[in-house]
Amino acid sequence: MDLKIFERMESEVRGYIRSFPVIFSKAQGSELIDERGRRYIDFFSGAGTLNYGHNNPLLRDRLVDYLASDGVVHGLDMATSAKKYFLQTLDRLILKPRGLNYKAQFTGPTGTNAVEAALKLVRQVKGRQNVIAFTHGFHGVSGGSLATTANQKFRVAAGVALGNTSFMPFDGYFGPDVNTMAYLERLLDDPGSGLDRPAAVIVETIQGEGGVNVASQGWLRELEHLCRSHDMLLVVDDIQVGCGRTGHFFSFESSGISPDIVTLSKSLSGFGLPMSLVLIRPELDIWKPGAHSGTFRGNNLAFVTASQAMESYWTDTGLSERVAAKECFVRDWLENLVHSCRGAGLSVRGRGLIQGLATPAGDDLAQRIARRAFEQGLVIETSGARDEVLKVLPALTIPHELLGRGLEILERSTNDVLESLGRIPRMLKAAG
Amino acid sequence: MDLKIFERMESEVRGYIRSFPVIFSKAQGSELIDERGRRYIDFFSGAGTLNYGHNNPLLRDRLVDYLASDGVVHGLDMATSAKKYFLQTLDRLILKPRGLNYKAQFTGPTGTNAVEAALKLVRQVKGRQNVIAFTHGFHGVSGGSLATTANQKFRVAAGVALGNTSFMPFDGYFGPDVNTMAYLERLLDDPGSGLDRPAAVIVETIQGEGGVNVASQGWLRELEHLCRSHDMLLVVDDIQVGCGRTGHFFSFESSGISPDIVTLSKSLSGFGLPMSLVLIRPELDIWKPGAHSGTFRGNNLAFVTASQAMESYWTDTGLSERVAAKECFVRDWLENLVHSCRGAGLSVRGRGLIQGLATPAGDDLAQRIARRAFEQGLVIETSGARDEVLKVLPALTIPHELLGRGLEILERSTNDVLESLGRIPRMLKAAG
Amino acid sequence: MDLKIFERMESEVRGYIRSFPVIFSKAQGSELIDERGRRYIDFFSGAGTLNYGHNNPLLRDRLVDYLASDGVVHGLDMATSAKKYFLQTLDRLILKPRGLNYKAQFTGPTGTNAVEAALKLVRQVKGRQNVIAFTHGFHGVSGGSLATTANQKFRVAAGVALGNTSFMPFDGYFGPDVNTMAYLERLLDDPGSGLDRPAAVIVETIQGEGGVNVASQGWLRELEHLCRSHDMLLVVDDIQVGCGRTGHFFSFESSGISPDIVTLSKSLSGFGLPMSLVLIRPELDIWKPGAHSGTFRGNNLAFVTASQAMESYWTDTGLSERVAAKECFVRDWLENLVHSCRGAGLSVRGRGLIQGLATPAGDDLAQRIARRAFEQGLVIETSGARDEVLKVLPALTIPHELLGRGLEILERSTNDVLESLGRIPRMLKAAG
Amino acid sequence: MDLKIFERMESEVRGYIRSFPVIFSKAQGSELIDERGRRYIDFFSGAGTLNYGHNNPLLRDRLVDYLASDGVVHGLDMATSAKKYFLQTLDRLILKPRGLNYKAQFTGPTGTNAVEAALKLVRQVKGRQNVIAFTHGFHGVSGGSLATTANQKFRVAAGVALGNTSFMPFDGYFGPDVNTMAYLERLLDDPGSGLDRPAAVIVETIQGEGGVNVASQGWLRELEHLCRSHDMLLVVDDIQVGCGRTGHFFSFESSGISPDIVTLSKSLSGFGLPMSLVLIRPELDIWKPGAHSGTFRGNNLAFVTASQAMESYWTDTGLSERVAAKECFVRDWLENLVHSCRGAGLSVRGRGLIQGLATPAGDDLAQRIARRAFEQGLVIETSGARDEVLKVLPALTIPHELLGRGLEILERSTNDVLESLGRIPRMLKAAG
Repeated sequence: MDLKIFERMESEVRGYIRSFPVIFSKAQGSELIDERGRRYIDFFSGAGTLNYGHNNPLLRDRLVDYLASDGVVHGLDMATSAKKYFLQTLDRLILKPRGLNYKAQFTGPTGTNAVEAALKLVRQVKGRQNVIAFTHGFHGVSGGSLATTANQKFRVAAGVALGNTSFMPFDGYFGPDVNTMAYLERLLDDPGSGLDRPAAVIVETIQGEGGVNVASQGWLRELEHLCRSHDMLLVVDDIQVGCGRTGHFFSFESSGISPDIVTLSKSLSGFGLPMSLVLIRPELDIWKPGAHSGTFRGNNLAFVTASQAMESYWTDTGLSERVAAKECFVRDWLENLVHSCRGAGLSVRGRGLIQGLATPAGDDLAQRIARRAFEQGLVIETSGARDEVLKVLPALTIPHELLGRGLEILERSTNDVLESLGRIPRMLKAAG
Repeated sequence: MDLKIFERMESEVRGYIRSFPVIFSKAQGSELIDERGRRYIDFFSGAGTLNYGHNNPLLRDRLVDYLASDGVVHGLDMATSAKKYFLQTLDRLILKPRGLNYKAQFTGPTGTNAVEAALKLVRQVKGRQNVIAFTHGFHGVSGGSLATTANQKFRVAAGVALGNTSFMPFDGYFGPDVNTMAYLERLLDDPGSGLDRPAAVIVETIQGEGGVNVASQGWLRELEHLCRSHDMLLVVDDIQVGCGRTGHFFSFESSGISPDIVTLSKSLSGFGLPMSLVLIRPELDIWKPGAHSGTFRGNNLAFVTASQAMESYWTDTGLSERVAAKECFVRDWLENLVHSCRGAGLSVRGRGLIQGLATPAGDDLAQRIARRAFEQGLVIETSGARDEVLKVLPALTIPHELLGRGLEILERSTNDVLESLGRIPRMLKAAG
Repeated sequence: MDLKIFERMESEVRGYIRSFPVIFSKAQGSELIDERGRRYIDFFSGAGTLNYGHNNPLLRDRLVDYLASDGVVHGLDMATSAKKYFLQTLDRLILKPRGLNYKAQFTGPTGTNAVEAALKLVRQVKGRQNVIAFTHGFHGVSGGSLATTANQKFRVAAGVALGNTSFMPFDGYFGPDVNTMAYLERLLDDPGSGLDRPAAVIVETIQGEGGVNVASQGWLRELEHLCRSHDMLLVVDDIQVGCGRTGHFFSFESSGISPDIVTLSKSLSGFGLPMSLVLIRPELDIWKPGAHSGTFRGNNLAFVTASQAMESYWTDTGLSERVAAKECFVRDWLENLVHSCRGAGLSVRGRGLIQGLATPAGDDLAQRIARRAFEQGLVIETSGARDEVLKVLPALTIPHELLGRGLEILERSTNDVLESLGRIPRMLKAAG
Repeated sequence: MDLKIFERMESEVRGYIRSFPVIFSKAQGSELIDERGRRYIDFFSGAGTLNYGHNNPLLRDRLVDYLASDGVVHGLDMATSAKKYFLQTLDRLILKPRGLNYKAQFTGPTGTNAVEAALKLVRQVKGRQNVIAFTHGFHGVSGGSLATTANQKFRVAAGVALGNTSFMPFDGYFGPDVNTMAYLERLLDDPGSGLDRPAAVIVETIQGEGGVNVASQGWLRELEHLCRSHDMLLVVDDIQVGCGRTGHFFSFESSGISPDIVTLSKSLSGFGLPMSLVLIRPELDIWKPGAHSGTFRGNNLAFVTASQAMESYWTDTGLSERVAAKECFVRDWLENLVHSCRGAGLSVRGRGLIQGLATPAGDDLAQRIARRAFEQGLVIETSGARDEVLKVLPALTIPHELLGRGLEILERSTNDVLESLGRIPRMLKAAG
C-alpha cells in the first residue's frame, strides 16, 4: 500500500498511522480490513470509541434510515426530533434506572470540549481557579483540558505555561503501600501547603491513556469524601471507560460514588460518530444561555445511533454479564501469560474490558510487542507515559472466537519479542 | 410542540432553541421542517456549516453507499481509503489549482480544536507566548482558542484569567477614517508599548460571529506585510467564511495574501458532519508525532462527503459565479431595504453570501426582527457583541425563488418591527 | 579610579555605573564628588529620590540625633514613636490641608512593593484580575508590578508570561490629534472588544521612566470619569513625580482628580532612604491583618527624615513657588536650546522640575549628549523606551547658580554632539 | 500609650502592632523600650534582621561618621566608595575564606526583590517557566516571589492566580518516616507526573516563617544531587537564616552543598537597614544591563554598616562559637520545658539560634503564650501556617543573662497558659 500521500501531505503530528502503516478500507465488528483485503483483529477499538464494534448493523440501519428520511443532520443546538428522542432514551434507560438526576450539556462533539465545559462550570460555581488533577491523567489537549493532562508530550506542545491545576498522585502512584489520598488530605488540611483551594477534582476511575491505572473503590470513596469535606466538586471523566467499558454504563457505578459532573464521549454515539455530553447535577447548572458554544454541538446522526445503542444494549443486564465473562477470560489469559514469562517483569491490571499488560518501563518492550502483533494481524495500542503498557481494549461485543485469537497473537508476539531479546530462556517458554 | 423535555433535561446553556422554539424533524436544501410539518426558509445554514444545503443528495448518496459498504467510520488518525481520497482530492481540486502548498493536520473535528492546534504550533515555531487577535473576533471557546475570542459573554465563563493574547482593533473598529493597522504598527515598532512580541496574528477576513465585519483587501495586505516585517506568523481562521462562502474556496484568495496557517471546519465536510483541518506551510510543520491528539480527528464519514463536495462544486468556477450573482441580488435587496427605512439607522455590510443588516446597537431591534421573521417562516440569526446585526447566511445553493421569499420575509419583518416601535412613519414606509 | 572590583564582582545587570564610570564618594546638595575630588552637578537626583538634595543638613541632623538617642531603627510594623510622629505629620501637613482622607499602608520600602500592594488591593476589592496600564508606563520590576510596566527590556527578563494587564495608549501616544481616552472608552463600552473588565487603572501623571510624557489635566479628568462610570478604581503611581516634583506635593493636585489609591516612594523620606507608602481611601481598606508583609516595611530612619522633610518644606507654599520659578527658568532655557538647534528634531516636554529634552528616536543622540555632559561635569539621565529623552531632574532645592551652570553644560554638550554629527551648520549654532 | 493614630490612619493590614500593642521608642542590643520606659527582652530580632542587636554601637558609630562626612547616601547603582568597600570586604571576609565564587547583584533592598531577581535569572538561564518551591516555604509577597510562598494567607491576597510554581513536600512534611525527596525524584523521573520541567528549586534550609522546619543535611545534599541530575538550578533563600543565624555565615555551609544562587537580606546590613543581595555563580550571570532595576538598589548606608558588621564579627570564628554555645543553652532549656510539660504536645526544633517551640496545631496555644510572655516583658513571635510555633530568635549577640531571663519568661508563660487551660496538672508543673 502506498502511504506516500500521507507522508507528503499529512502533518508530522500524525501518530497511529506510524504504528499501523497500512491503509484500512473496511471494518466490520471487531475486524479491520486493509486495502489489500488483509483482516486485522481490533483490540484497539478506536481508543475506546467502538464499544459495540465497527459498523454495528443495528446502529447503521437506523442511521441509513434517518439519512434516507431527510432527518436533520446539522442543527447546532436547536431542538430536533433526534435530540428529543436521545434525551428521552437517556433518561429512560440510563439515568432513571440508576436513580441519577443530571442535566445534559451537549458540547462540541469531542471529549476535550466536554472537559472544557466541565472545568469552566466548576470554576464558575465555586469562584475558584484551581482544580486538582492526577498523575498520568488524560483529559484532552485543548487549552483548558490540557492543563489537567499530565503527560509532558502533550503539555510542552502548548507553547504556553499551563496553570490553575495541581497534580496529585493517583491511586497506587507510590506503590501499593502508600495511601495517596492521605497525601492529598494533608495538603488540603494545611493552609501552608501551597495548594490553592481547588474548585474541583477531575478524575478518571481507570486511566486509559495513562497506562490502565485502576483506582480502587475505596480510594474513589475517600476522594468523594474529601470533596464533600473540603467543598470541592467531583468531576468524573468517563470518556474512555464509560459507556459500558467496565461492564456498567458508568465506570463509577460499582464504587457507589455520586459525581457532581460526568463527562462522556467516545462510545456514546455507539458508532464512532463524534459526540460529547456533560452530565451536571441540576443545582450546579448555572450556565448562562449561549455562554459555551460550538458548531457541531448537536450531532444529530450521533443522537440517532446513540439512542439505538442504548435501546440495543442497555435495556437489560445482558451486556454487563457478557462483559464480566469476557473480563474473566482476558484476565486469566493475561495472568497466565505473565506467569509463563516470569522474570520478564510483566504484570496485568485493569477492570472490565480494559486490561493492561504492563512491561518494565524504560525500554520499548510494549511497543515491540505491539509491532510484532500487528505483523500477525492484531491491532493493539500501547499506553502510559512511556508507552510501556499494552492496552487490551476489544469491543464489548467481540465474538469469543476472535477474542481468543487476538489473545493468542498477543501471547505469541510477547514470547517472540522476549525471546528475541534473550529475556526468556527457551525452556521456560516451552514450559509456559 | 412540546419542548418540556429540553427544559427539564438540557442545560441552561442551550441557546438557539430559545430563538427558534420548535422541534425540527427534517431538512432539505434550504428548508427546515418542524414536527408539525411547517417549513422554514433557512438563512442561518448552521452558522455557515451548510454551504451546500441540508441533506444535499449528491453527498448523501455517497455517504449511504459508504456506510453500506462497511467503509471505516472511526479510525483515529490511522490511514484509511476515505482519508487518502480526501487528501488527494484536496490537493487536486483546491490546493494545486491555487498554487498553494500546505500540509494538512486533522484535529478533533470542531473548529476550536483546529484553532487550538494552530495556536500551539505558532508558539512552538516562534518560541513566544503572545499572539494578536482582534476586537470582535471569534475563534472558539476551548481554553486556548477562548483567549483569542473577544466577546465577554464567552470569556467570563472560563472562570480563569485568559492570557497570552493582545487584542487589536479590527479594520474599521474606530470608523472609516481610522487606519487601525497603523495603530498595530505603532505598538509593534515601540519597545515601550507594553505589547509583548507576538508569535502570530490570528484573523478572520470577515468576522461572522462578531457582526459581519469585513476586512478590506488593503487592510489584509498591510497585515500580512506587518507579519513579515515583524517576524510574526499569519493565521487565517477561515472556519466560518471559507469553503466558498465568499465565492472563492478560501476567503482570502481575492486579497492575494498567503497565510502561514489556515483553519477550516464548518462547511468543510459539506454535509454538516464534524470535521476540522489545519493547513500548514510545510516548513512550519515542526509537530512531534502524536503531540496533539483527539479521538475523532479522522472523521471518515466527513472525508467521504468532503471529497464529494469538492468534486461536485469545485471542479469549475460555476459555484463562484452563482455566489457572485446571489451576492448582488441580496445586497441590492438589503440596500433597498435600508434606503426605504432611512432614519432607522440600518446599514448593510458583507461579502459573498454573508451579508449583515446592522441595526443601531443598544436596543434589541435585530432580535425583534429575527423573532418576527421566524414567526413568518424564516430562520435567521443575529450576531455581533450586542446581537445587533442580522446575518443573512443562506446556503450557496439556495434556489433563487427561496432566496427571494426569504428576503421578502426579512423585509416585511423589519418593517413590522420598525413600525411597531414607531420608528418609521407610515408614509415613509409606504413610499419605501 | 579603579572600577575593576565592580567589573569582577558586580552582576552584568549593573546599569548607571556604565553611564557614569567614576566612583562617587561624597555628595552635598546638588553636587556629587568622586574619589578624585571632582565635582558633578546632579540633574539626576537619584531618579527623583533626592528632591531636597543630597545629605540635606536639616534632615541629616535629625537623623544623627535619632541614631544617637538609640531610637528604634528596625521594628517591622510594630508601633514606634518615629512612626507615630510620621503619621501625625503626614496627616497634619499633607492630607488635612488638601482635604484628603487616606489610610496609610507601609510596604517593603521600595516603590515596586507599594505598587504590588496597590494592585493586590484593587483586585481584592473588585474581585477582578485585569488592570489597565499605559504605554510607556513604569511601575517596577517585581512580578506583579512588572506586568504593568510597558518596557520590553524589563518584561522579557521575567522569563514568564506576564498577564492580567491591558495596555492602553497614554495621552498623546498617537500624536496631538488623537484623543486616546476615546479609544479606551470605546473598548470599555464594547462587550466584544476583548478587554476583560478591569479592577482598576494604574497611571503616572507624568511618565518619568517612559520619556517624560505628561498627561494633560483634561485627560486625567476624563480618565477619572471613565473609572467612575465603569466601576474601576483609579490608582495614581506618584512614586517619581510626587513629593513636590511638580510643585505640588501630589502631582495630581492641579488636575482636581481624586485617586482611590496613591503610591509614594523615592523622595518620600527626603534623604534617599528606602521608604514606600500606599495611600488608600478608607472604605477600600479591606486588607486582612498581615496579608501583605515585608521585613523593612517600617523603616524608622526614613520616618524620621520624612517627618522632618514635611516640616521643613511643606508648612507653607514657599517650595511650590520656588519650583514654579525654576520650572520657568529651565523651560525657557530648553526651549531656546531647541530653537537654536532647529532642524535637529529636538523638543521639550515636562511639568514642574521634571523636564525632558526629546531627541529623534532611533539614534543614540540623547545618550551621546548625556555622555558628553558627564565629561563636562553634569550627571543627567536619559529615559524613554529607546533612551531618546534627556531627563532634567534637578533637586527642587538646587541653587539657581548651579541650575544655570548645569543647563549651560547641557546646552554645550548638545551643540557639541550635534555639531560632531554634522546635524547643525556651524553658522546656525553661532546664531543660536 | 495611645495607639489611636495607628488605628485611625494605618491600614488594616498592620500586623505585629496587634501582637505587641505598645509604642516602642528606643532599642539597645537585645532590649526594646516603650514610650513609658518599660524594657522588653527581644526574642524576635526583627524577624531575623537584628542578628547583632539593636543599635549596635560598632555599626552605629561608623554610620554616624559616614553621615557626618557627607558620604553618598543614595546613588542608585552608581559606583560609590561605600559600595566598593562592601564588595571588597564581602570578597575578603566571606567569599574567599569559604572558597566561594559568586557575583553580586544588588536589588531593591527587600528580601522579596532579591528573590524576584533570582527567579527571573533561573528562568532566563534555563528557558523554562516552572520552579519548585516547598510546603511552608516563604519567599516574599511581591508577585513573582509570592507564587513560591506557600501560605494561603498571603496567596489569596494576590487577587490573581499564581502560577509557574510546583510545591513539593519539605523535609519531614509527612513525618520522620517518609523521605520526601524520593517523592520529588519520582515526579521528576516520570514524564507523566504532570510536573512541568523546572528551571530551578528554591529552598530555605530552615523555614523560619513556615514554623522553624529544619532540612537535614542529607536531605539538602539529595536535593542538590537531584538538581544536578535533572538540570535544575539550586537557589538557597538564606534571607532569614543566613548571616550567622545558624552559626555559619551561610546556613548551608555545614551541609556541604553549593547553591547556584543565594539570596541574602535581613541581617545583611547588620543594623536593620534595608539591603538585599543576590549571589550568582558567574557563569549564570547572563543579565542584560539594566534589565532589573530599583531605586534603592544601592543603599549606601547599609553598605557601610554591612562592611563594619563583617569586620566586627566575621574575621574570626568567635561568633560561630558563641552561637553554638547559646544554641546548646537554648535547646537544653526548651527541651527541659517540653519534658516538664509532657502531655501538652510540645516539641522543639531548630538549628543555631533559631529554635522553635512547637505546640499542637489547631488551637491558639502558641499565640496565648506569646501574648502572656509579652505581658511579662518578652517579645517573641509565632510562626507556622497556623501560628503554632513559638520562634526563639534572639540576637546572636544577646548577653547570657538576658537570654536566660527571656527563657524564664517563656517557660513561665508556657506554664501559665497551659495551667489556665487545664492542660497541665498542677502537680506535674510543680515537678517541672
